[in-house]
Amino acid sequence: MSHTAEIIAVGTELLLGNIANTNAQELSQALSALGINVFYHTVVGDNPHRLEEALSIARGRADILLTTGGLGPTYDDLTKQTICAAFGRPLVLHQEIVDWLKDKYARTFHIPMPENNLQQALLPEGCTVFDNPVGTAPGCAFEEGGVHVLMLPGPPFEMRTMLSRHVIPYLRALSAEVILSHDIMTFGLGESPMEVLLRERMEHMENPSLATYAKPSEVRLRATAKAGSEAEAEALLAPVVREVTDLLGDVVYGVDVPGLEHACLAHLKERGWTMATAESCTGGQIAQRITAIPGASAAFRGGVVSYWTAVKHSVLGVPEEILEAHGAVSEETARAMAEGARRVTGAEIAVSVTGVAGPDPDERGTAVGIVYIGLATPEGTFCRRCDFGKRRRDLIQNLASNHALDVVRRYLTDLPIQLR
Amino acid sequence: MSHTAEIIAVGTELLLGNIANTNAQELSQALSALGINVFYHTVVGDNPHRLEEALSIARGRADILLTTGGLGPTYDDLTKQTICAAFGRPLVLHQEIVDWLKDKYARTFHIPMPENNLQQALLPEGCTVFDNPVGTAPGCAFEEGGVHVLMLPGPPFEMRTMLSRHVIPYLRALSAEVILSHDIMTFGLGESPMEVLLRERMEHMENPSLATYAKPSEVRLRATAKAGSEAEAEALLAPVVREVTDLLGDVVYGVDVPGLEHACLAHLKERGWTMATAESCTGGQIAQRITAIPGASAAFRGGVVSYWTAVKHSVLGVPEEILEAHGAVSEETARAMAEGARRVTGAEIAVSVTGVAGPDPDERGTAVGIVYIGLATPEGTFCRRCDFGKRRRDLIQNLASNHALDVVRRYLTDLPIQLR
Repeated sequence: MSHTAEIIAVGTELLLGNIANTNAQELSQALSALGINVFYHTVVGDNPHRLEEALSIARGRADILLTTGGLGPTYDDLTKQTICAAFGRPLVLHQEIVDWLKDKYARTFHIPMPENNLQQALLPEGCTVFDNPVGTAPGCAFEEGGVHVLMLPGPPFEMRTMLSRHVIPYLRALSAEVILSHDIMTFGLGESPMEVLLRERMEHMENPSLATYAKPSEVRLRATAKAGSEAEAEALLAPVVREVTDLLGDVVYGVDVPGLEHACLAHLKERGWTMATAESCTGGQIAQRITAIPGASAAFRGGVVSYWTAVKHSVLGVPEEILEAHGAVSEETARAMAEGARRVTGAEIAVSVTGVAGPDPDERGTAVGIVYIGLATPEGTFCRRCDFGKRRRDLIQNLASNHALDVVRRYLTDLPIQLR
Repeated sequence: MSHTAEIIAVGTELLLGNIANTNAQELSQALSALGINVFYHTVVGDNPHRLEEALSIARGRADILLTTGGLGPTYDDLTKQTICAAFGRPLVLHQEIVDWLKDKYARTFHIPMPENNLQQALLPEGCTVFDNPVGTAPGCAFEEGGVHVLMLPGPPFEMRTMLSRHVIPYLRALSAEVILSHDIMTFGLGESPMEVLLRERMEHMENPSLATYAKPSEVRLRATAKAGSEAEAEALLAPVVREVTDLLGDVVYGVDVPGLEHACLAHLKERGWTMATAESCTGGQIAQRITAIPGASAAFRGGVVSYWTAVKHSVLGVPEEILEAHGAVSEETARAMAEGARRVTGAEIAVSVTGVAGPDPDERGTAVGIVYIGLATPEGTFCRRCDFGKRRRDLIQNLASNHALDVVRRYLTDLPIQLR
């Protein structure tokens, strides 16, 4: 049987625009991966009357309701009360939650539990309790008249933790079917040419299905299979992933890899190598992306943000003649920056970026969007020139850091540095 | 008369979780600033039947409906057709849009307009047209039976441009009242102690009103006034902003400033000074935040990401004796890093960060969350020690970069480096 879910986010801060509804996005991704249809998201404020109306509409068109928010201990947290009233379930005190809360306050916060926290131990009678290891509001689920209601906390980190620990297993148990996906990650081929390449293959595929998701300069290709068991789903997916990977060739940088920086780090660790960065217009973004990954220190030595031309000379040792003859945004400077970063850090390879992120052209008149990427290696130094055109500053910085990581990735996997 | 709006986002990509509904967030912020209530957000897929249902529910509970998405030229763009059918308005060809589209294709894309683009020139009879300078789908607005319907494109950049150019003026004209806000930006005081400080003052305020919005370690305090004119609203706001700023003292880093990095850059430019960074556990995040701001090069020279201990010595010149005696995560190393960055870049001041972002303690057993911030200046070197506790890596990195920028901000405004 196929299920239909509706996500109801409760919180006035969403209606005021203080935060985006990222909970709905994360829940939708998870539901989509489980093969559960989502036809509506609803956002409602901390107002019991309007939440009641949203519940009444939602239960008429979905058989799984997921709510986020309003489980806390303060007077405006009304989700549990409102849902229990709407579904005719009494709220009862769960002693094991009282004990857990008291213990948590004593051990983590070193204070007695405040009285108003008792409200968090009130949950619908006969519900499944979802514990919350990273907060104080437990979630829960119950079924009433064929409708499953799941209540999750609003803080994204608590919601996310509960989603993977409890919600996905709970929902998976509702269906006999297993849904499994693999993401084929690509860089350097647009979504349209990719769809042209794969059109014939994609049109005739139902199980597994193939779908593309594009970000600027990156396309994720998701293959999804439904089957009676995980092994069967894997058996359906494996040949498709292989075939598509072969068809797309060297633009594929990995399967189920979260991003280019993860691919680079993995290839470096495989070789036992380290890398360094020399960044001008990306201003530290490449280093920041790599060091956001736990364990980056195994392969990332460090880098230089040589934003001013003088720093390119003083810290990276780019010769003044090069800077004067060719300018800070040039192939020659990109190469010398990479070589300098490799020299001063002692890393096996170093990647550099110099370009014009805008909003204005540089002092030599180099246009916004022109970016040079250098790569210094034991075999010599390489360069890729990019022209991203006049775009927004943050987009150019992001494209430049992606291209730099792609140059590293291609070198480490023995591919030509230049994109076709 | 007070208005109530509902935001309906149309797009299957939202229900699949491919993107977050940032359009609803941005529209909500704008509506809130205009004093228009928003009681619901709804998200619906590219499905005319379900969009029709969402419209029928929304027009029963709001007098302003804003839709985003589904205005493009492809077969699944059905917003205009569905809304016109629901409100009994014929869709008619707007010749001025046909001319504009043909011209845009000829001049920008250098190709004749594809036939399917004619659909974008079909708009409700008698509507107000919202031109789209950054895309090809115009938006529009009409009023029917006391309900205002505004249709905006889905791509966030197009939506945002149309919002400021057309939607805000259109909605402002619906009301005689002017709503104006100022954001008092603070760092270093939690939301609860701030509310305790301000409670008495906040409880008795209606116009202007005061509200707090917390992010980790930062609290934004928004004062909002309603009046008959902008000048009257400003006159109501000015004394409150002054009073609250005085009450909170030096944790206020600016009014209507987007973030700490913007405050630092402004103070540097005022003095005609430059700065540099030396980052270990933040991995380039401080430099990246500063260089994300257009015009950063006026005051930011560059920095070093000295991730490995050896790079702290080789590039920043931190003495090996210090590294051996005190370790890479220590006050002494933080001071020497900042001094090194100041020396090699020639900047007037340099800020450094060294700490343990986790997930594991460092090799000397320093706990996750311990971070030292150094600041080298013409008057000597300062240090702040932070203990963020065992939190997520990205949160520790973000807190550390905030504290580093706060140290810079406090030095440049002649405040004590240490938080009370």
